Amino acid sequence: MPKQVDHRERRESIARALWRVVGQRGVMHLTVREVAREAGFSHGHVQHYFASREEMLSFAMDFASEQTAQRVGRGLEELGEHPHPRDVLRLMLIEMLPLYADARATSRMSAAYVLEALHDKKIHARARDSLAQGRSLVEQLVRQAIEDGYIGPDRDPVTETNLLLALTGFTTFLELDVIEPREVLAAVDQYLDRLFTGDGDGGA
Amino acid sequence: MPKQVDHRERRESIARALWRVVGQRGVMHLTVREVAREAGFSHGHVQHYFASREEMLSFAMDFASEQTAQRVGRGLEELGEHPHPRDVLRLMLIEMLPLYADARATSRMSAAYVLEALHDKKIHARARDSLAQGRSLVEQLVRQAIEDGYIGPDRDPVTETNLLLALTGFTTFLELDVIEPREVLAAVDQYLDRLFTGDGDGGA
Repeated sequence: MPKQVDHRERRESIARALWRVVGQRGVMHLTVREVAREAGFSHGHVQHYFASREEMLSFAMDFASEQTAQRVGRGLEELGEHPHPRDVLRLMLIEMLPLYADARATSRMSAAYVLEALHDKKIHARARDSLAQGRSLVEQLVRQAIEDGYIGPDRDPVTETNLLLALTGFTTFLELDVIEPREVLAAVDQYLDRLFTGDGDGGA
Repeated sequence: MPKQVDHRERRESIARALWRVVGQRGVMHLTVREVAREAGFSHGHVQHYFASREEMLSFAMDFASEQTAQRVGRGLEELGEHPHPRDVLRLMLIEMLPLYADARATSRMSAAYVLEALHDKKIHARARDSLAQGRSLVEQLVRQAIEDGYIGPDRDPVTETNLLLALTGFTTFLELDVIEPREVLAAVDQYLDRLFTGDGDGGA
């Protein structure tokens, strides 16, 4: 195996161990030492791959975002060549929610990262950039859908983007078993049905 | 000061110190020792008030919920005797979001508690009960608003309740400065305008 790939794979397996620590043992245990134990490596071995706890956390977060993007990418492939913008947005929203194991792991990592951001300026800046980038992507889709006549021309793209993203608020209700997955899906679909009232005739 | 009041006040001041630790130093520091330091008490003194870290955390969370309920209660008083259900729901939503210092402290405490719930069954059960109770209250308001003709009779109360609560998803976007407070308020108002389309004529 080429050395570079091995390095990357090692970092990814440490990142996955970090996600497990977040979900199974708690943010209290997010130290290099505890993550090393979970990954089955020595403390020094993990330090070889990450110079600091912050670097390890940031990598684990970036890796979570990448994994989420990959899941969305696979879902997009299944939607075919000219997917309906409603289906694209639905896919993105669903993959951000803790509805199944993979999405749960990345969602929990995000929640932990946001809490770290509250008291760490570097992490805050990084988390902000990443979330703002995701928000831009959604706004672009919303603007295009308005232009193409899928969403009514009276809708404000900024407000609609923000309301769509706020639906990630289901996360807490899912994690605490207060709203069931099928109810969340029903609510998301109801919401999208009300937003996508046009037939995509180019808004002519 | 009567002893009981003093006991309660002491516990509240420790809870506030715990909130500060969450916001300013991070969940990693949520130990009895660190909270005692932040509160300016000895470790033993805090142990006198809380038998365990879990008890301290749960009290700090209950206190956060109480404080939020009190803020909502004060807001309700300002709304007068027969408030419009739209205003009541708006008030409840706004107070759950980290839009100003007090609400930020309780919101951060909630976020930390949810992460603790992931790996602690007792905390999970407690957090679930509290959130489910809040959800019931909102559902009751929504059902009444449908019955009174403020919300269209075609709306499903369960789905509408869930969608309203999902708006707490703005929390992350506010904490990371990705969506500005005025944009959040605009989106919430837009959302409520679309929900409250009736004039409260009793649905007749």
